[in-house]
Amino acid sequence: MIKEHGGNVYKISRENNIKIEDIIDFSANINPLGVPESGQKAILDAINGLVNYPDPDYMDFRKAIADHHGLSYECIVPGNGAIDSLFSAVAAVNPNKVLVSVPSFVEYEKAVKKSGAEYIPAYRDEEENYALNIEKFISEIHNDIDLVIICNPNNPTGDLVTFDDMVKILNKCKANGTYLLVDEAFMEFAEHFGAKSLDCLIDQYSNLIVSRSLTKYYAVPGLRAGYLIVSDEAIQTNLLTRAEPWKLNYLADQFTQAVLQDENYVHATEKWIVEENKSLYKGLQAIKGIEPVESYANYIFFKCFYPNLKEALLEKSIMIRTCHNYDGMHDNYYRVAVKDKKSNDTLIRVLDEILSN
Amino acid sequence: MIKEHGGNVYKISRENNIKIEDIIDFSANINPLGVPESGQKAILDAINGLVNYPDPDYMDFRKAIADHHGLSYECIVPGNGAIDSLFSAVAAVNPNKVLVSVPSFVEYEKAVKKSGAEYIPAYRDEEENYALNIEKFISEIHNDIDLVIICNPNNPTGDLVTFDDMVKILNKCKANGTYLLVDEAFMEFAEHFGAKSLDCLIDQYSNLIVSRSLTKYYAVPGLRAGYLIVSDEAIQTNLLTRAEPWKLNYLADQFTQAVLQDENYVHATEKWIVEENKSLYKGLQAIKGIEPVESYANYIFFKCFYPNLKEALLEKSIMIRTCHNYDGMHDNYYRVAVKDKKSNDTLIRVLDEILSN
Repeated sequence: MIKEHGGNVYKISRENNIKIEDIIDFSANINPLGVPESGQKAILDAINGLVNYPDPDYMDFRKAIADHHGLSYECIVPGNGAIDSLFSAVAAVNPNKVLVSVPSFVEYEKAVKKSGAEYIPAYRDEEENYALNIEKFISEIHNDIDLVIICNPNNPTGDLVTFDDMVKILNKCKANGTYLLVDEAFMEFAEHFGAKSLDCLIDQYSNLIVSRSLTKYYAVPGLRAGYLIVSDEAIQTNLLTRAEPWKLNYLADQFTQAVLQDENYVHATEKWIVEENKSLYKGLQAIKGIEPVESYANYIFFKCFYPNLKEALLEKSIMIRTCHNYDGMHDNYYRVAVKDKKSNDTLIRVLDEILSN
Repeated sequence: MIKEHGGNVYKISRENNIKIEDIIDFSANINPLGVPESGQKAILDAINGLVNYPDPDYMDFRKAIADHHGLSYECIVPGNGAIDSLFSAVAAVNPNKVLVSVPSFVEYEKAVKKSGAEYIPAYRDEEENYALNIEKFISEIHNDIDLVIICNPNNPTGDLVTFDDMVKILNKCKANGTYLLVDEAFMEFAEHFGAKSLDCLIDQYSNLIVSRSLTKYYAVPGLRAGYLIVSDEAIQTNLLTRAEPWKLNYLADQFTQAVLQDENYVHATEKWIVEENKSLYKGLQAIKGIEPVESYANYIFFKCFYPNLKEALLEKSIMIRTCHNYDGMHDNYYRVAVKDKKSNDTLIRVLDEILSN
């Protein structure tokens, strides 16, 4: 159905005749601490509850998330994973013209086009390592733009737009009557490096929509749990009335309520990401022929001119993400997840071997 | 978000101050044998697999379902529950005019309107207990109809359109260049009463789309697992390219593959439904003031003029489904699930008490 994302170990396994369990997957950005035990227990406890329909209003789920962000439950709209949330948000705004900061997550373009709107890419520059140029970007938010989409920290580049710069974007949007959809799928990781979510501005800015996901931080891409944070009542109503009922499965609902209480998992994740992000970055930087970019997330973006690097790594059962299918991205860029120390060391060793030949 | 469906024990609990576990819920049509043990085990075994993204092509899931129906996997399109499948199917056909046999499941109308098409209800007659009048219905399938939707066996009435009559509808649709979407959410129950699915005609009729659900028969409304069966390549492509990736969660995927092998559950379900459907029907029929309709499914539809019957039952912690919000339905109709013998006996006893006063 789709071919472009990381994490498709199934296809790689089928096409290269490698057992799935033998693949070291650096192409999907998943917390290597794995599914939190608190969440596993919640799923076990919830199995017998599968005989009931989910609460169509998802009250407990929304209240748990609202508490987590210090907001009221009305602001929280559940989604079947962040992708569903993003598509729903674009459809709910019902825009004519959408400005998207790219290169970034490829699904924004699809969501815009599916909604029938015009997709307007705001290209970041290779010369700036594809970091957001705040002045240039703000100058591109013209009066006729109905919706702006930005991923922060950005995927695949890992750069962060500061809170203050995001407020500048938000104010420009507000002055224009433009909605701003911020995808914060990796924000929990960035917070361990001092970043700050826009969640606290929801009540002040009715043009702000924040998308969050449980997938990356809590290591559950298979579970499908995400949500939007939005205070604009028209958008809330549009989202809720357009939505098919029971989008979020009950196991994801119960899992979410449990893991948001799990402080141990957050502390362990902080310890790991702060150490391993820096360590992997330095390891990559030390390899001649690799130019990594500093990252505020659990992945590192780098440039490398070695031909067929992906295939060379696959011969060692290592999967990485080529970035060629991101709109506005030049060739020879890659993204690797920050994994556990042992896997990261293996990646560095194998990359060093390949590039030394 | 929605107020109209059965099974919303959460709302009833909140509004009436009854504990959820004390409610006997006859409003949702769920197999009382509960979540199959084979499926529970599959979920337990799959928890650690949540760290991987679902296979975006869902190959194993589609092959398991295709085998179950004796079809090729290309015909199978996964959905986040049957509702998602139904909305996706209507959107994929992209119709101008849709004829829907009603009274029936209320989401068809929403799916049609969300797609931007004109909703054309084909009303069944109260005088015929809302059973489908095949000649009348076929006469309403005019040339300008792009899509016909019918639920078989029908919800909430429980009547079955025979296989031969469905073929007549299918042929009329084919002659008109019209797609036929058949919702078979309750077909596995009906098969225990001799009914036959249209799945075997998929290869012959490219205008046929069948929707199936795991929800009712395998007692997992909380899990969200459904699928479409369709052979038309244009519709397949439209469905797969329009779909957001990873709609189906991995636990639902693994659950489905397991329970389709579980013959014991099917035998136990057959034994229960054949006995209890008839027993509940006779029990209802014996109560003065209740006129039940024979059903091919795991619920029974009846007429009753007692005022505020739903509220009177709720005082005894029994939830039933009033049918007033079905398009084309007159007042004084209700639907009750066929549950386990003890619950069914309780319902009969309490109804008898209420109606004897």
